[in-house]
Amino acid sequence: MEGVIVKILKKPRLKDPILIEGLPGVGNVGKISAEYIMRKVKAKKFAEIYSKYFPPQVLPKGDGTIYLVRNELYYKKIKNGRDLIFLVGDYQGISSEGQYELSYEVLKIVKEFGCKFILTLGGYGTGLFNETPRVFGAATSKEYIEEFRKLGVIFSPTDPGGGIVGAAGLLLGLGKEFFGMEGVCIMGETSGYISDPKAALNVVEVVDKYLNLGIDLEELREKSKKIEDLTTSMTLKLKEEEKKIEKLDYYA
Amino acid sequence: MEGVIVKILKKPRLKDPILIEGLPGVGNVGKISAEYIMRKVKAKKFAEIYSKYFPPQVLPKGDGTIYLVRNELYYKKIKNGRDLIFLVGDYQGISSEGQYELSYEVLKIVKEFGCKFILTLGGYGTGLFNETPRVFGAATSKEYIEEFRKLGVIFSPTDPGGGIVGAAGLLLGLGKEFFGMEGVCIMGETSGYISDPKAALNVVEVVDKYLNLGIDLEELREKSKKIEDLTTSMTLKLKEEEKKIEKLDYYA
Amino acid sequence: MEGVIVKILKKPRLKDPILIEGLPGVGNVGKISAEYIMRKVKAKKFAEIYSKYFPPQVLPKGDGTIYLVRNELYYKKIKNGRDLIFLVGDYQGISSEGQYELSYEVLKIVKEFGCKFILTLGGYGTGLFNETPRVFGAATSKEYIEEFRKLGVIFSPTDPGGGIVGAAGLLLGLGKEFFGMEGVCIMGETSGYISDPKAALNVVEVVDKYLNLGIDLEELREKSKKIEDLTTSMTLKLKEEEKKIEKLDYYA
Amino acid sequence: MEGVIVKILKKPRLKDPILIEGLPGVGNVGKISAEYIMRKVKAKKFAEIYSKYFPPQVLPKGDGTIYLVRNELYYKKIKNGRDLIFLVGDYQGISSEGQYELSYEVLKIVKEFGCKFILTLGGYGTGLFNETPRVFGAATSKEYIEEFRKLGVIFSPTDPGGGIVGAAGLLLGLGKEFFGMEGVCIMGETSGYISDPKAALNVVEVVDKYLNLGIDLEELREKSKKIEDLTTSMTLKLKEEEKKIEKLDYYA
Repeated sequence: MEGVIVKILKKPRLKDPILIEGLPGVGNVGKISAEYIMRKVKAKKFAEIYSKYFPPQVLPKGDGTIYLVRNELYYKKIKNGRDLIFLVGDYQGISSEGQYELSYEVLKIVKEFGCKFILTLGGYGTGLFNETPRVFGAATSKEYIEEFRKLGVIFSPTDPGGGIVGAAGLLLGLGKEFFGMEGVCIMGETSGYISDPKAALNVVEVVDKYLNLGIDLEELREKSKKIEDLTTSMTLKLKEEEKKIEKLDYYA
Repeated sequence: MEGVIVKILKKPRLKDPILIEGLPGVGNVGKISAEYIMRKVKAKKFAEIYSKYFPPQVLPKGDGTIYLVRNELYYKKIKNGRDLIFLVGDYQGISSEGQYELSYEVLKIVKEFGCKFILTLGGYGTGLFNETPRVFGAATSKEYIEEFRKLGVIFSPTDPGGGIVGAAGLLLGLGKEFFGMEGVCIMGETSGYISDPKAALNVVEVVDKYLNLGIDLEELREKSKKIEDLTTSMTLKLKEEEKKIEKLDYYA
Repeated sequence: MEGVIVKILKKPRLKDPILIEGLPGVGNVGKISAEYIMRKVKAKKFAEIYSKYFPPQVLPKGDGTIYLVRNELYYKKIKNGRDLIFLVGDYQGISSEGQYELSYEVLKIVKEFGCKFILTLGGYGTGLFNETPRVFGAATSKEYIEEFRKLGVIFSPTDPGGGIVGAAGLLLGLGKEFFGMEGVCIMGETSGYISDPKAALNVVEVVDKYLNLGIDLEELREKSKKIEDLTTSMTLKLKEEEKKIEKLDYYA
Repeated sequence: MEGVIVKILKKPRLKDPILIEGLPGVGNVGKISAEYIMRKVKAKKFAEIYSKYFPPQVLPKGDGTIYLVRNELYYKKIKNGRDLIFLVGDYQGISSEGQYELSYEVLKIVKEFGCKFILTLGGYGTGLFNETPRVFGAATSKEYIEEFRKLGVIFSPTDPGGGIVGAAGLLLGLGKEFFGMEGVCIMGETSGYISDPKAALNVVEVVDKYLNLGIDLEELREKSKKIEDLTTSMTLKLKEEEKKIEKLDYYA
């Protein structure tokens, strides 16, 4: 069996397309972001990627049937702009070698469709619930930094200190070294403890502005609000509990 | 050394055969079920599968001799019906990649024998001892759901939530995507803590009715009864102990 | 880099040679046994085996120099008997796949030298210090059982229950299935907690009698005695301590 | 994707070059040492090594851009002496097989540049803070021992007992067995708990004297001093705390 098997479903002609990656990861920020944009712009699937580097697993579709875990490529033609390719899916490769093999294969495919620029979306896990989570960026070349800075993205000399692990990093690194591609990783600050639509909202806003897509953010804003309320009420409760304990201490 | 080595012992001519898989897994339900059916219909071995994806181990035959761990394929010709192929064995592949390689290889073989439909048998571990354990199903296409529903199999939009891991899932997923095969996974609800003949009995009953094999279930019913008695008596004892403790509490 | 690299140092002509394997394992029984016999019969090295399936490590020779971890093949010509090949070394393969690759490669080599029979030596770990440890056996075919039974080897229907893991099992299993070889595994009962010359002594005695080598066992007997004394004195101390505690209890 | 991908940036003509390896490891001694020497002699990069055996990761350059994790080869032409090649980088291979593949590939490259001798630098972790840490050595052949002994390097029959694990060992082992190269590993004694410039200073001094490079050690001495002060003050504090506790005991 080949390590990575690609099923090309159609071969759309794409105009200088940008690859947007959003696979499961820290706070699921990348996955939520990319799948939201993809859905809102009504992208169409053109390829499926199967691999022995994914878990040996089928997943329920919700109607009693199942499908083999996979990654998928979607495309969207954009009037008066660069076309889009989306990389989404159930899993990232589960071994280091698998990660390399999968990212390398994806880059081979999108290169065939003329891709020269990549946006990878992800979460930057800080372990803290920040009320106004930031958006961090990292680029393959300096020339891309300024444009994203204007959109509020922070390019820090020290963050993320541990680098970027997984497909969001590897697509940029391998793309730059072996496929002549440039790219930027957009990371939404997140606690990393929960699937985080708020961090995703921040990421989607950046991508939307950068690509001028005019995406309707309402749905994601609502999800983000719900999570925010939940987190706030939990934090309040925790604080009340702490106060009670303090009071008890006074009378102790 | 090849990753998977297949020894074909004979080449039976099979009539539209169905592959029935039952390898070790949750509660050993699949293994117990498939081996029981295989034994009762007196299937004959026609292939052995060795692999470096199995543990590096030989197992005792019980007479002082040993054999290399393996999977095996058996066949049974059925009068007035579709023939059967059984996949049974000592282990599943121990790495994710090994799982893919092994399932892929098995599908290549059974395709050569004309197989287009697969029944994978397994356990659905809930962590609970359910007195009347259910049977869950998952299919590659909707058209197979109704027929199994009539046999009491539950096709739930949410169960099994984590999908189906291992050969029982992979044979269906890979079979569907790369070999043009359809199939259904039959999962007996089990605590998952013990080798569970009761869950297997439920699975065998479904397969028996579906294939109209007229299998003698007596032996499996006895084993199932013994386990049930054991579980019941253990549960009773635990409840008595709890009552004693409660009584002690009253007098405390 | 090839997975397994074999350096053939010489090509001795061997007469129907028997492969004797003793690599590190439970209680190091196999390693101690094979290396003892090899040294006593003054076998000569004819091949070195290097592999990426071994740990990435060099080991000290004791004179300030180091060597790459490896397995080695030695040979000994026996007058009026079958010649011998020894497989010894620093490590077994550290992954399951590596184990298969290494055993397969060894079998390919020894087949070239005409080998048709294998004796693998190992420990059977029981977790207990048995004063008169037994010797267990397992064979590829029934015809070899009787001869070893006469030498005191126990062929049990149930031991070792978990089968034989590693090179000692795999050489027999792969040898039988793919190289037309037969063989027997001789396992010295051992606690498994320490490097166990006493268990090795029992194994060497069996091999010595079987092959009629007339090996001087004195040196191994001494080591075995020392370990026995040590174990006995430790056991006595433990018992005394227990008695003291009991006495204290009486007066408590 | 190839397991190891080498990008040769230039092809310098080198005169009987010596490979000096210093990759991350125990106390980071090898990495600190090799990179210090490399910087002080102003070596120039001539090759980059990428591999799926490294972690799937990009690292920040500190200016908002990132690069794919890699190893690098530098060279330095030495007047009236043997030229130098340096192997440095972000990581060692993360699996055993990866370690072998990477070392083997490096040896293939440096052999093309005429390399016949290797110095690998590393740490020898003892778990203790030794005030005057020693330097240990291990060689591929006895003839190199004397010269390094004169420089204060200890070649012990027993240290390092566990051998040398990773690239520092493997380059010597594989170089000797498969590339006709000789070499010495220089190990600075270190606690292993911290990144240890003091141990590195000792190693650099040995290399400097051996190769007669006239390296300015000032910068490394300062770093070493700072660590030493820190360690000493921490040790003093710990001792004071212990005394306090003892005093408390007297009055208890």
